[in-house]
Amino acid sequence: MNGMRIATLTSGGDCPGLNAVIRGIVRTASSDYGSTVVGYQDGWVGLMEDRRVQLYDDESIDRILLRGGTILGTGRLHPDRFKNGLETIKANLADAGVDALIPIGGEGTLKGAKWLSDNGIPVVGVPKTIDNDVNGTDYTFGFDTAVSVATDAIDRLHTTAESHNRVMIVEVMGRHVGWIALHAGMAGGAHYIVIPEQPFDIAEICKAMERRFQMGEKYGIIVVAEGAMPKEGTMELKSGGVDQFGHEIFTGIGQQIGDEIKARLGHDVRTTTLGHIQRGGTPTAYDRVLATRYGVHAARACHEGQFGTTVALRGEHIVQIPLADAVGTLKCVPEGRYKTARALFG
Amino acid sequence: MNGMRIATLTSGGDCPGLNAVIRGIVRTASSDYGSTVVGYQDGWVGLMEDRRVQLYDDESIDRILLRGGTILGTGRLHPDRFKNGLETIKANLADAGVDALIPIGGEGTLKGAKWLSDNGIPVVGVPKTIDNDVNGTDYTFGFDTAVSVATDAIDRLHTTAESHNRVMIVEVMGRHVGWIALHAGMAGGAHYIVIPEQPFDIAEICKAMERRFQMGEKYGIIVVAEGAMPKEGTMELKSGGVDQFGHEIFTGIGQQIGDEIKARLGHDVRTTTLGHIQRGGTPTAYDRVLATRYGVHAARACHEGQFGTTVALRGEHIVQIPLADAVGTLKCVPEGRYKTARALFG
Amino acid sequence: MNGMRIATLTSGGDCPGLNAVIRGIVRTASSDYGSTVVGYQDGWVGLMEDRRVQLYDDESIDRILLRGGTILGTGRLHPDRFKNGLETIKANLADAGVDALIPIGGEGTLKGAKWLSDNGIPVVGVPKTIDNDVNGTDYTFGFDTAVSVATDAIDRLHTTAESHNRVMIVEVMGRHVGWIALHAGMAGGAHYIVIPEQPFDIAEICKAMERRFQMGEKYGIIVVAEGAMPKEGTMELKSGGVDQFGHEIFTGIGQQIGDEIKARLGHDVRTTTLGHIQRGGTPTAYDRVLATRYGVHAARACHEGQFGTTVALRGEHIVQIPLADAVGTLKCVPEGRYKTARALFG
Amino acid sequence: MNGMRIATLTSGGDCPGLNAVIRGIVRTASSDYGSTVVGYQDGWVGLMEDRRVQLYDDESIDRILLRGGTILGTGRLHPDRFKNGLETIKANLADAGVDALIPIGGEGTLKGAKWLSDNGIPVVGVPKTIDNDVNGTDYTFGFDTAVSVATDAIDRLHTTAESHNRVMIVEVMGRHVGWIALHAGMAGGAHYIVIPEQPFDIAEICKAMERRFQMGEKYGIIVVAEGAMPKEGTMELKSGGVDQFGHEIFTGIGQQIGDEIKARLGHDVRTTTLGHIQRGGTPTAYDRVLATRYGVHAARACHEGQFGTTVALRGEHIVQIPLADAVGTLKCVPEGRYKTARALFG
Repeated sequence: MNGMRIATLTSGGDCPGLNAVIRGIVRTASSDYGSTVVGYQDGWVGLMEDRRVQLYDDESIDRILLRGGTILGTGRLHPDRFKNGLETIKANLADAGVDALIPIGGEGTLKGAKWLSDNGIPVVGVPKTIDNDVNGTDYTFGFDTAVSVATDAIDRLHTTAESHNRVMIVEVMGRHVGWIALHAGMAGGAHYIVIPEQPFDIAEICKAMERRFQMGEKYGIIVVAEGAMPKEGTMELKSGGVDQFGHEIFTGIGQQIGDEIKARLGHDVRTTTLGHIQRGGTPTAYDRVLATRYGVHAARACHEGQFGTTVALRGEHIVQIPLADAVGTLKCVPEGRYKTARALFG
Repeated sequence: MNGMRIATLTSGGDCPGLNAVIRGIVRTASSDYGSTVVGYQDGWVGLMEDRRVQLYDDESIDRILLRGGTILGTGRLHPDRFKNGLETIKANLADAGVDALIPIGGEGTLKGAKWLSDNGIPVVGVPKTIDNDVNGTDYTFGFDTAVSVATDAIDRLHTTAESHNRVMIVEVMGRHVGWIALHAGMAGGAHYIVIPEQPFDIAEICKAMERRFQMGEKYGIIVVAEGAMPKEGTMELKSGGVDQFGHEIFTGIGQQIGDEIKARLGHDVRTTTLGHIQRGGTPTAYDRVLATRYGVHAARACHEGQFGTTVALRGEHIVQIPLADAVGTLKCVPEGRYKTARALFG
Repeated sequence: MNGMRIATLTSGGDCPGLNAVIRGIVRTASSDYGSTVVGYQDGWVGLMEDRRVQLYDDESIDRILLRGGTILGTGRLHPDRFKNGLETIKANLADAGVDALIPIGGEGTLKGAKWLSDNGIPVVGVPKTIDNDVNGTDYTFGFDTAVSVATDAIDRLHTTAESHNRVMIVEVMGRHVGWIALHAGMAGGAHYIVIPEQPFDIAEICKAMERRFQMGEKYGIIVVAEGAMPKEGTMELKSGGVDQFGHEIFTGIGQQIGDEIKARLGHDVRTTTLGHIQRGGTPTAYDRVLATRYGVHAARACHEGQFGTTVALRGEHIVQIPLADAVGTLKCVPEGRYKTARALFG
Repeated sequence: MNGMRIATLTSGGDCPGLNAVIRGIVRTASSDYGSTVVGYQDGWVGLMEDRRVQLYDDESIDRILLRGGTILGTGRLHPDRFKNGLETIKANLADAGVDALIPIGGEGTLKGAKWLSDNGIPVVGVPKTIDNDVNGTDYTFGFDTAVSVATDAIDRLHTTAESHNRVMIVEVMGRHVGWIALHAGMAGGAHYIVIPEQPFDIAEICKAMERRFQMGEKYGIIVVAEGAMPKEGTMELKSGGVDQFGHEIFTGIGQQIGDEIKARLGHDVRTTTLGHIQRGGTPTAYDRVLATRYGVHAARACHEGQFGTTVALRGEHIVQIPLADAVGTLKCVPEGRYKTARALFG
């Protein structure tokens, strides 16, 4: 079907590549199908409040390819408010003459997309997560950029750690999964990597550092995912309260691990928490290509009526998979991958 | 089998990530299997001349992770000399007590590896090509770095092209396949991409640039793979002679296309040939992870006796495939991928 | 004087930091003096053809800080046409109610600015040159970015040169002066640097490379400024014609030096010509700060009536110097600086 | 005097460029004067404990040009222990046959150098500080790298702040002076910059952010030096204890300012503390050139007998100034420079 009216929105945390997806949708819709695209601002909130902007296929849409963040803004909406808003959403989409909706977001957003789809709205999803934790797709855009930023930081920390004979802890993003820690740690030549999927034993980490010093090495780099958890009974963590969904947060897990190593080994230990720089800025070439392809394929899927699906990367190919396959569980680091990383510790 | 003696070598053009593979092999062999690793210098030449160095699992092997090129040196050996050297190779490997050989190289190297394997030498290959043209694997290390360097360059050329109202041609690597041009062109927001797999029509390129100017745009960026070829009868190219294997080379295809556009449109056109910077320097985080995994898995395959195979990336997994599946034909850009890129031209 | 109407334009080759200057002018004029700023397009041409745009002190002016090139466009105007255009220029400025003009450009542009000033137009200049060849100022913006891009490239070439046992020639910008070659060569650890100020002896360069090989080194990096010239009688160069001002050009001096070294030493030699990537893209932090300060001070100078001057960097300070001090001769690399660089060759 | 025996050491916090200085000293001493160089490990401590390594003018010294940190290691020595060690130092230098000592370090190290010089030891200093706070020199190496890293981070934070309508605080290094905050803030287009030299008024910062929101802007970036101090009576800070010299430290000043803005404006505010990544890693081209020149000139000064001096950058030139001129007070950001930065806030 040509000459459609497509709507898109970006929801959840921002992520390098969101604008490349938007550009891919607008370009494909316009040049290949003669369709038009409208964007809702600030995620689901903008859809519910009917705040929309027309997106034109002109030079300005080209410029956003390199730009981090999202020109549409993003936001989080409490699931309850979302679920009570079905009639409003339907009315707003009808009012705007929207034939298909492309929500771009993480597992929570895709869950919402599935629910809308189940309720009769023609939806094609685009998975977005710097954490790489969405099921059903090999990789998501934003992840490569986050890993690159973290790796650059680790590269820099090697020399300062070595010059001062220090153990250096780097806390990276990853509340539920350890993909960023795993990849940045491997790319950065870390001497230990701590991820949520593999509860850590502080004694084992200390032993690994000690072994280094005994072998004459002068420093150590430890990469810690923010969602790292100790093996039960091995280390007490100070709680940082609970998040909006009731899960306990351990603020500054990197700092806490660092303090403990310092206490146990009596060695100079410093912690760096990379924070928001991992999710901002110009996407890497890899993420620009992946995000652009997602956008092109999502637009195509709308015109081919493949609703209730999401784009996904499988090997070299972009495919459409049922939204149901992308939600429900998070994609965790498998034990084999962690074992490969461990082979390089030391 | 533990306690093996493994040999490795790097052959063909250098490629960011070679050292990460070597490190992965040495670390895994040493820490997981108690094996030792020896490296032959300058590719097959070093193997035939028995020039080898012991590679130790110490801090120095860690440092090479970030370093471009190859600490073993590389080289090219004429296939005839190679084929006549079987007895020498066997004698040298026996003399050094080598139980398994891991050659790291492109399609030609893997062909050699297969031939050695067919002749009874226990071989596990590692594919290497910045061009991404080896069959049977989704991606090869070095490619992401090359694309990143080319994309950085294209990013820079946008603003200078725009300030001067110019058409800017960027010639990138890719003698036989257009992967680097395709990805860097997509990532860099190029307005036209020319690849060997899709013979170009200079009139069509000129028309695309003219359309831009008519729409009020002030400049254009065209990415050209060095192996680009015109549709028969559409443009005559000055030949640059023949390469060592007898294939005609068109030196400076980018410049020739630029000259032709200038002649036809009367517009200011400039050409930049990126050259060797695409293959040197620190690998990207993506390439370091991929190369490290290749090294780890190649070492494991040796210890598990999976000879006659090469490591390969399939989706998220590293698998062993028969060497025969990786040689014979080059992996070209499929038409669908070029069509996706075309949707973004203009 | 407050509430002025200031005009600006960018002339000559584009240069990273031009937009930062424009932003600095607009911001300062608006917030500190309640003045407005208008921009002429495409350099002197736009001034003569009265093509102007209003520049507003809003968010859009902030965004240009990071952007290479110039939002005003740039161009070159033949001096004769410029000199015959005085009355047109005066009429256009009067028509637009312009109280002061800030031309941003290189030595040629500042010469034009001086001539306008001598003819009664209130002018404050801003020196611009990636070549760093404007007299009277320690450094100019754009130079640091060009050096950084060239240094990144040289860093990458080291590993590929080493892996292949090659001599690698890198031709960088600098038609009349060797500043970029000098700094990038020093920063990149080049083994020889050739600049226009010091005519080269090809035999000496070959000897330096030979000495490296004799000492067991495997490769060499030579940085060549595009305006490099041989000592009389030591090497014949193929001419590339004459430029618009009648000066002979030797196209591809890097390639020619490379060919000669290859012929004399019989060694594998490769040449990379960096070209336009040196002048495009996001400016370095250094250039953004310098360009911003230039813009702020130029705006101030207009409001303080310091006409007939140009901003200049002296140590840590931005000062106003007579336009006459910035034109007439180019700032060359002094012998002492080249001698310091030579101490690191080898 | 030729054929000297020179000693060098690096003291205080590590800094990108230290290795480039060492390389400059070794190369110049060796090739221009036939002298040899020895390095003491871990700063003054290594000198007192007579831990030294010979530094050879070979390929390995070339490789360190790009490497952050210091191959000699660094450390801090309590002034008392240092002052009591004069005889030990003299004995160790005599024992090693050292003719001249080149300590590379910050204000404290240069103070020590001056004291040694006053006590008859032939000393030439090299100023080192990423903070740019050493008197008598325009800039010091390491500063440009720190500013570049911080600017990259700020660039990334813009898009994430904008996508989420946030105020983003970036805490950068600078315990006593605000140079890094000033330059990175200007280069990164920050909307407010807080430096130690200009005590801040939290109400004024809040007002500046509010004005942005009233004008329709969606976010704000505030750069805070770690040594920022409130105007007396305007905001209470939680103390982080005292440092080794008895000065009070306010740990997490960025976080504290962020919390206060959040409390006052009710706006989403996030804080990123860049930490150690500012001082590690490959130096920028600017820093490599400056550090190399420092090394070359320090070696020359030794051979010319200019003891009791330190190298310093004045405009384009490296000069020798009395050690006394470099110590005693720190180089602060002058009010004029802060005023220029303020012109760009908003």
